[in-house]
Amino acid sequence: MGLNVNNPLPLHIQLKDILLREIREGLYQEKIPSERELMDKHSVSRTTVREAVSALVHEGILEKVHGKGTFINRFRSINDWLGHLSSFTETIERMGMQAGAQLLYQGTGSNQEIAESLGVEEYYYIKRLRFADQEPIAIERHYYPFEISNKLKKYDLNQITLYEKLESEGIYLHEAEQRISAKNPDPSDAKLLGISENTCILVAQRLITDPQGDPIEYYCGIYRADKYAFSLKMSRNMK
Amino acid sequence: MGLNVNNPLPLHIQLKDILLREIREGLYQEKIPSERELMDKHSVSRTTVREAVSALVHEGILEKVHGKGTFINRFRSINDWLGHLSSFTETIERMGMQAGAQLLYQGTGSNQEIAESLGVEEYYYIKRLRFADQEPIAIERHYYPFEISNKLKKYDLNQITLYEKLESEGIYLHEAEQRISAKNPDPSDAKLLGISENTCILVAQRLITDPQGDPIEYYCGIYRADKYAFSLKMSRNMK
Repeated sequence: MGLNVNNPLPLHIQLKDILLREIREGLYQEKIPSERELMDKHSVSRTTVREAVSALVHEGILEKVHGKGTFINRFRSINDWLGHLSSFTETIERMGMQAGAQLLYQGTGSNQEIAESLGVEEYYYIKRLRFADQEPIAIERHYYPFEISNKLKKYDLNQITLYEKLESEGIYLHEAEQRISAKNPDPSDAKLLGISENTCILVAQRLITDPQGDPIEYYCGIYRADKYAFSLKMSRNMK
Repeated sequence: MGLNVNNPLPLHIQLKDILLREIREGLYQEKIPSERELMDKHSVSRTTVREAVSALVHEGILEKVHGKGTFINRFRSINDWLGHLSSFTETIERMGMQAGAQLLYQGTGSNQEIAESLGVEEYYYIKRLRFADQEPIAIERHYYPFEISNKLKKYDLNQITLYEKLESEGIYLHEAEQRISAKNPDPSDAKLLGISENTCILVAQRLITDPQGDPIEYYCGIYRADKYAFSLKMSRNMK
């Protein structure tokens, strides 16, 4: 899949997506090709190459080293852009990294607060350790009413992107109210993430609803604060 | 300022704002008046009272105790609603709390990363300890190009809401890109906030620009994670 002039996406966005995929697939060891090489390879202008590369530099994925070229930032922290509700897999792939999952637990639960949020008495519970380029980064806990979780039973939970599968099953993830906080990790979570109990984790909790306002998922994700941050654009409307 | 039927704001929103102000001003010790008392006092329907009170319960400001009434949640953590760019003062007052400031430092600085963000060589720097109901909650660092900070010099920085004053000086805070992360506090910051160095703080960094995209302020705020969290509404647009 190369650049396509009939694609409504601007060429520099298409080029950025191609570079991200190539970085994710490990095509480049450290350095990406020069501007001239990218112009020739994709038959685009210098401006298009610069816009694509600048966007990746701005997002911390690439870094320019004066007189040496443009390098993949190996120590980049993951940037989760808020506003649009994204899955962990989508967030990681947008960083040019490979996302992975390891199922830790699935089964039923009845914690009162979670059950009340979902408007049920019992729920289905999926806990997964999440990886970026093979490194453990997050632990995600998903809680579903049974009529939702029944649609996921046929899939291998070590492999799938839950939100993609829910959507392919006709479930419309409409909106969510998300809370972001920070705390020290529990001993067992710290061990899974390979961090000390005295370090910090970011916590995201959210309730996703469908267009009718009915709960689809209650979610609690914890993320290594040395590897993960949230970003968003904000505006200030004059009163 | 009571309820006003000519005000375009719905009555339950007006009533919510009145209750928040009364809570902030310390009118209620623990318990707010009953539904019946609020209906009589403000000449509104039970529905209006219930909507106003429910919103404050949802935001964690009030809590209902079965059979006892509705109480102010003394252990509420502060909820900073993202999306709209708010000052600390606005966020704290929206929780029905009193916001306070203590100026710790003001002067010039030239940290390279901050100066580059602002597009200047030197900047003006204001550091304040922030309080909610007299308790230290946050440390805010504001960095300004001199043409902006010059407009603030006539004010007492222990008193003012910076964004309000900038706006009254004709500076239009248009938008910001904000990053939220977490870490352990520096020893000196931990001491100011009255917390241990092993606990967590939330960190918000942002660059505020005017409608032309020119930088107005670089900001770095740290917040006690046991007292402060961020919230936002998110949507998922189908691809």
